[in-house]
Amino acid sequence: MPENCVFSSWLHFILNSTMRSVSFNLNEVIVLLQRTPHVLSTLLQDLPQYWIYNNEGEETWSPYDILGHLIHGEKTDWIARLEIILEQGENKSFTPFDRFAQFEDSKGKDLHTLLSEFEDLRNRNLQTLQLKNITPKEYHLTGIHPDFGIVTLEQLLSTWATHDLAHINQMTRVMAKQYAHLVGPWKNYIRVLNK
Amino acid sequence: MPENCVFSSWLHFILNSTMRSVSFNLNEVIVLLQRTPHVLSTLLQDLPQYWIYNNEGEETWSPYDILGHLIHGEKTDWIARLEIILEQGENKSFTPFDRFAQFEDSKGKDLHTLLSEFEDLRNRNLQTLQLKNITPKEYHLTGIHPDFGIVTLEQLLSTWATHDLAHINQMTRVMAKQYAHLVGPWKNYIRVLNK
Repeated sequence: MPENCVFSSWLHFILNSTMRSVSFNLNEVIVLLQRTPHVLSTLLQDLPQYWIYNNEGEETWSPYDILGHLIHGEKTDWIARLEIILEQGENKSFTPFDRFAQFEDSKGKDLHTLLSEFEDLRNRNLQTLQLKNITPKEYHLTGIHPDFGIVTLEQLLSTWATHDLAHINQMTRVMAKQYAHLVGPWKNYIRVLNK
Repeated sequence: MPENCVFSSWLHFILNSTMRSVSFNLNEVIVLLQRTPHVLSTLLQDLPQYWIYNNEGEETWSPYDILGHLIHGEKTDWIARLEIILEQGENKSFTPFDRFAQFEDSKGKDLHTLLSEFEDLRNRNLQTLQLKNITPKEYHLTGIHPDFGIVTLEQLLSTWATHDLAHINQMTRVMAKQYAHLVGPWKNYIRVLNK
């Protein structure tokens, strides 16, 4: 094997292994969390109403409902749970999260109001997070989730970022489905329309 | 039933029916298409490499690959097909789309370059689209898709917008999966990690 091939295989191996083994990094979690309010405004503002308020069918959520859910998480969930873990008090149990609170909380608010509210809450929560000066020694501290028991701080923070991505994913699926009846035979080729 | 309840049921009925019957509207398609380059920059730029270059496993696409695919569509697909339909020439068959062209085309280009390229191409294509001054009478003109035969202009344009949403959906799924091993027991609660 010529030398440059050995080098190229080695480089390929290194690149692949670097890319596949993602380890927890607090700053990278923050880089993701910071952008979500801007991603949502860019995606949603000034769109026709059906892309904001229509859902996927009974008992499913519209992008507007999902945004309300993200807001409720900022108000009651992520930072509250983070603090329970960091304090390591006698009771490390999290308060159960209300997955339907947004239907009451968002009442009477327009999309623009919710987008600003989410941005403010997220910025404030990221400031709070950064002021905690969390060290790697604390990543494995635990709290108790009401459904599945012991979870670590690292898992909570990784879930916060993943939860953002999962809900942008859900919004784009709901939005795409509003055109399912307009795309004709392309429908079978667009995976998200068939979920 | 008190009068305000009748009114409220009627309003609910009207709102629901307005929201559920989405009909084709060229300007609304354009409103969606215009924002996609900004959504992608806001979502992707300055992220750690694994969120850009990692995929979901063998023979799947990373957000970087997907962006290359969107660029190839702007270069060779949507406008070319639109013109075939509008011209109504003897041969209304579309050229098959190369779903793997991006692996050659994107070589050596960084994410920032691809994001700018996509934005430029999309803006240029939307200018071209608007210069066509398409009228509702033309919405039902047809072309021939290589796989599934006759399609209308309205279906092509609706698919263009839906295809954007479907690929933002795919990107966020691929990105979320990079943290699947970091979220611990939350994995079972996040639907997109189990797809």
